Amino acid sequence: MSQERNQAYAKAMGAGADCPAREIEPRLALGNKVFSAEKLLLARMMESLGNPSLDLVLWDGQEIASARRPAVARVLIRDRGAMLKLIANPELGFGEMYTAERIEVQGDLVDSLEAINRALPRTDRGQIGKKLLAPFNGSRRNTEPRARRNIHHHYDIGNDFYKLWLDREMVYTCAYFPDPAMGLEQAQAAKLDYVCRKLRLEPGETVLETGCGWGALALHMARHYGVTVTAYNISKEQIAYARERARAEGLEGRVQFIEDDYRNAGGEFDAFVSVGMLEHVGVDQYQALGAVIDRSLKDAGRGLIHSIGRDRPGPLTPWIERNIFPGACPPSLSQMTQIFEPFGFSVLDVENLRLHYAKTLEHWMERYEANVERVAQMFDPAFVRAWRLYLAGSLAAFRSGDMQLFQVSFSRSGHNRIPWTRHYLYPS
Amino acid sequence: MSQERNQAYAKAMGAGADCPAREIEPRLALGNKVFSAEKLLLARMMESLGNPSLDLVLWDGQEIASARRPAVARVLIRDRGAMLKLIANPELGFGEMYTAERIEVQGDLVDSLEAINRALPRTDRGQIGKKLLAPFNGSRRNTEPRARRNIHHHYDIGNDFYKLWLDREMVYTCAYFPDPAMGLEQAQAAKLDYVCRKLRLEPGETVLETGCGWGALALHMARHYGVTVTAYNISKEQIAYARERARAEGLEGRVQFIEDDYRNAGGEFDAFVSVGMLEHVGVDQYQALGAVIDRSLKDAGRGLIHSIGRDRPGPLTPWIERNIFPGACPPSLSQMTQIFEPFGFSVLDVENLRLHYAKTLEHWMERYEANVERVAQMFDPAFVRAWRLYLAGSLAAFRSGDMQLFQVSFSRSGHNRIPWTRHYLYPS
Repeated sequence: MSQERNQAYAKAMGAGADCPAREIEPRLALGNKVFSAEKLLLARMMESLGNPSLDLVLWDGQEIASARRPAVARVLIRDRGAMLKLIANPELGFGEMYTAERIEVQGDLVDSLEAINRALPRTDRGQIGKKLLAPFNGSRRNTEPRARRNIHHHYDIGNDFYKLWLDREMVYTCAYFPDPAMGLEQAQAAKLDYVCRKLRLEPGETVLETGCGWGALALHMARHYGVTVTAYNISKEQIAYARERARAEGLEGRVQFIEDDYRNAGGEFDAFVSVGMLEHVGVDQYQALGAVIDRSLKDAGRGLIHSIGRDRPGPLTPWIERNIFPGACPPSLSQMTQIFEPFGFSVLDVENLRLHYAKTLEHWMERYEANVERVAQMFDPAFVRAWRLYLAGSLAAFRSGDMQLFQVSFSRSGHNRIPWTRHYLYPS
Repeated sequence: MSQERNQAYAKAMGAGADCPAREIEPRLALGNKVFSAEKLLLARMMESLGNPSLDLVLWDGQEIASARRPAVARVLIRDRGAMLKLIANPELGFGEMYTAERIEVQGDLVDSLEAINRALPRTDRGQIGKKLLAPFNGSRRNTEPRARRNIHHHYDIGNDFYKLWLDREMVYTCAYFPDPAMGLEQAQAAKLDYVCRKLRLEPGETVLETGCGWGALALHMARHYGVTVTAYNISKEQIAYARERARAEGLEGRVQFIEDDYRNAGGEFDAFVSVGMLEHVGVDQYQALGAVIDRSLKDAGRGLIHSIGRDRPGPLTPWIERNIFPGACPPSLSQMTQIFEPFGFSVLDVENLRLHYAKTLEHWMERYEANVERVAQMFDPAFVRAWRLYLAGSLAAFRSGDMQLFQVSFSRSGHNRIPWTRHYLYPS
């Protein structure tokens, strides 16, 4: 890299920049000169994104100022190849080039991503990239083998990694903060308890849980509510960890962790619960999930599904879908009703906890960055940056309303032993 | 009527029957004899209804005992014509023949109707009569003139009639009973207040209300929350009454009652509210309603829709649709999302108050029966019985889960000044 370009970079980054200038080879043999046609394409791309308040800085030090002032941050594009990838497919290209350290963000990453989300024309929110996404999303059914591959990709990368930034109970879903100043450990415990209270669990009852993560909810239910839990998960590492915890706590008799697909669940239960699995199910399998619930619930049965959602149907951004959560798709409420309506389940309560997920992600990000040196010992730099981007992007999505968090409580139709009001959930 | 038949009747009805034996002429000239083929058809009809626990008693005193014991009540069929109407179309025929006093129910009317709802095969609940209903429901769009005719049919039959059995504020929608023992007046006031708190109204704000009934909510909001309300309704009598109340209270400057269709609402507002109108809108107009909300709400705007609903899409029973609520159709949640998702509104909270509507209807029925003599002075006997059946049928529908009551709170997508938790709704 030429001395000149290094200097341009140093100038562009300013003092105290998060991302120091690095040697990056240009990928195309067109030389370093930025053509004015390329600047025009970049400006058009920004326009198509609703002109987010971000300044662009090119590898030669040239700037393309945001149409909105003040700019939230500066996006440094380090080579022509990165620029072309960005122009060709902003949603995929940004993540790929950021991960490869060929795009840097000078300023707050979360704020920058939120600015992008909020700038998108309102009717486009959640819609952009739909066409680009077609090869990745919706067209591929999450069959059992595919579901296993998808889940393995994300959840089996090492429990020690997740321990670095999750709470001590290893709850990898939205926490519930009765008080926003509450710590993460307390808020995850509050969430587990909130779910149990919404389910109105009674000692001696049986619960079917699908997608049980590292087992925190199942163990919490058995420990504090005296119920017997049958919990399904297809992540090998999570199930092994959960079983070990049950043994250590002497709860093996009351919590059974089964390494199998939710579609194979059998038996009859007083309650059904699923926290953070639906995102991975795929909309075309919602009726199959409804059928599992229908055949598993007793007449007086009730259930709760907790899931990331959307205000309207839309895919994940393609970079997340390709790199972080293959096969995943957070549903809109209309999509979620496909679980309930064919079987006549009665939806009793829907609560949107969007801002609680933003708060949860703030905690995760803080812990992640505090332990980032240890992450870097476990994985390569691209992984470190990919997970930073994923966490920041998720936080931005919950802040900007691009993602929602729905807790849906339901019962069998016409069952009248349901709570009279919601007062019981909010003791003074 | 022969002495013999009268005696058979007297025997069938037993002592202390609600409905004394009356002179009813047979409508068909086939004589009084009941053919065994007819009894077989009746038995088949009962089977198709899932064998509700009701005994049938025919005009000659013959009984067809319910397959389920004990029977909740006895249904007396007074002539061959009534029987044939029932067999041909149970849902429409029962209401028509009950109204005409050619079918009587010996026993509790609400329990009988609930038994019918609950016996229906589960997958059929809300589906029966779908084909029969086709001419009445869904195929006819509620254009503005049709909407006016539909609303006139039900709401313009005389304010004095409704005063006989509604609360003093004339609230003709589901009440909210923080305590089930609470009286109706108190529970309707609690509902109005609950809606205002869910909307988080602040003094000086502006509210758009569509379908304002006799104006109770609009006046409550202006009186207790210091907001300015623009309220739409196409019922002439209701609007006249509401305006008179605003004048009497000196609130004309703060509540404007407009006799016009919700689709013509204009202006910009901090909040949107609609309580008990959606049932009359028709699913094919939900997007039009969403567009009204979208163009009326400020960026920080939020809204609440309160509506009768269903666990799954389905029409009203044809008798209710034809005789009581022409053009009406309570939506399932998936149908309701058609208001919100096309415009990217964010659903924050859905509460199902089904049992509160059952309780509300218990109060209305009690008041109706307490004042039935005065109703009989205003209307003919068929009206008195039709409204008894409508109230009883509605109560049965909410008890059996055939109907739901959804309160849906929403905001613009990505707006972050939303309640952190729902604690504020439930002060100790």
